[in-house]
Amino acid sequence: MIYNNFMENLRNKICLLIIDMQYDFLEKNSPLFVDECKDIIPNIKKILNKFREMGLQRIFVKRVHRKSGIDIDLTRKDLFIEKGGFLIEKKCGSEIVDELKPLDNEIVIIKRRFSAFFGTELDLILRRMEIKTLILTGIQTPNCIRTTAFDGISLDYVVIVISDATKSKSEEIQKNNLKDMKDVGIKILKTEEILNMLK
Amino acid sequence: MIYNNFMENLRNKICLLIIDMQYDFLEKNSPLFVDECKDIIPNIKKILNKFREMGLQRIFVKRVHRKSGIDIDLTRKDLFIEKGGFLIEKKCGSEIVDELKPLDNEIVIIKRRFSAFFGTELDLILRRMEIKTLILTGIQTPNCIRTTAFDGISLDYVVIVISDATKSKSEEIQKNNLKDMKDVGIKILKTEEILNMLK
Repeated sequence: MIYNNFMENLRNKICLLIIDMQYDFLEKNSPLFVDECKDIIPNIKKILNKFREMGLQRIFVKRVHRKSGIDIDLTRKDLFIEKGGFLIEKKCGSEIVDELKPLDNEIVIIKRRFSAFFGTELDLILRRMEIKTLILTGIQTPNCIRTTAFDGISLDYVVIVISDATKSKSEEIQKNNLKDMKDVGIKILKTEEILNMLK
Repeated sequence: MIYNNFMENLRNKICLLIIDMQYDFLEKNSPLFVDECKDIIPNIKKILNKFREMGLQRIFVKRVHRKSGIDIDLTRKDLFIEKGGFLIEKKCGSEIVDELKPLDNEIVIIKRRFSAFFGTELDLILRRMEIKTLILTGIQTPNCIRTTAFDGISLDYVVIVISDATKSKSEEIQKNNLKDMKDVGIKILKTEEILNMLK
């Protein structure tokens, strides 16, 4: 019964977040390249397709910066200058990869920091949609996924991180971060598990 | 001496905010038309020109909504639907008026609510610029100017509202709001006064 309620709630009030799946993180020659991150595209795509089929909410989150760098994290400012900038608005590198490209009627949120909630309208929009549960996918687990997950539970959302639709620089980092998140009440599921739940 | 220090601080760490000077508020046939708001354009333009000449920081703030209305204030949702939307991204109505059009290298912040700080990167950028003092211009005084001013002082900025470069629906509303703001420590100056200070 509790499980049925959970499922009911899950289906009605759920939103998929696809975080930072942009060329400047995923292309081998780009300044912020993280190896093997492309590997999670098929799993994210499976979940995205399911959400689209079922008419469930999904939001694409992009990290984008002004060319001047005035909105880049202070800790990345030197790198930003050295590399001639990255994730710059209107440039190809800040675009979401083709495989996961948002449709015209899908919501895209622009962020300037790690968490998708930091200085953005994400919470406003989720509240309007009466979303209660967030499904987190994208990169990277210790940074943007984790900060968004912690802000999410702090704002009273149920947060589910998909372990094989998120990625870290190493398996060890991935494992440790998933464990830490599980320890604070963030749920960890696999792609197949969330797909089965939504059947 | 105190005055000299204040002036020094003012010149170095000052930022002009031009708030909501968009066609959908200013054009007679637009859904959010506020009468006589165009009257303040010349004063804002004078201040903007001075800031540009002196190389001082200025930020343009726009209220913009998605066509779907998912990010419109709940209190304006019915009106948004009734009017077929307003301040919609990429449409003319959400553009800043020609007289005050931002240059390519000037910063524009998109907001979804009254305060320019609410769910935006404004505070991040002001902090990076080491701005200490905000000069507020634009419309309307009781809503977007006042909420931005209160958030500004709450975040430890010195806030100066320009009485004849802001506007309300009536002179009485304008007067009452300026008084309320003055009472909490927000400074009220005229266009000529701020221009003289910056000489």
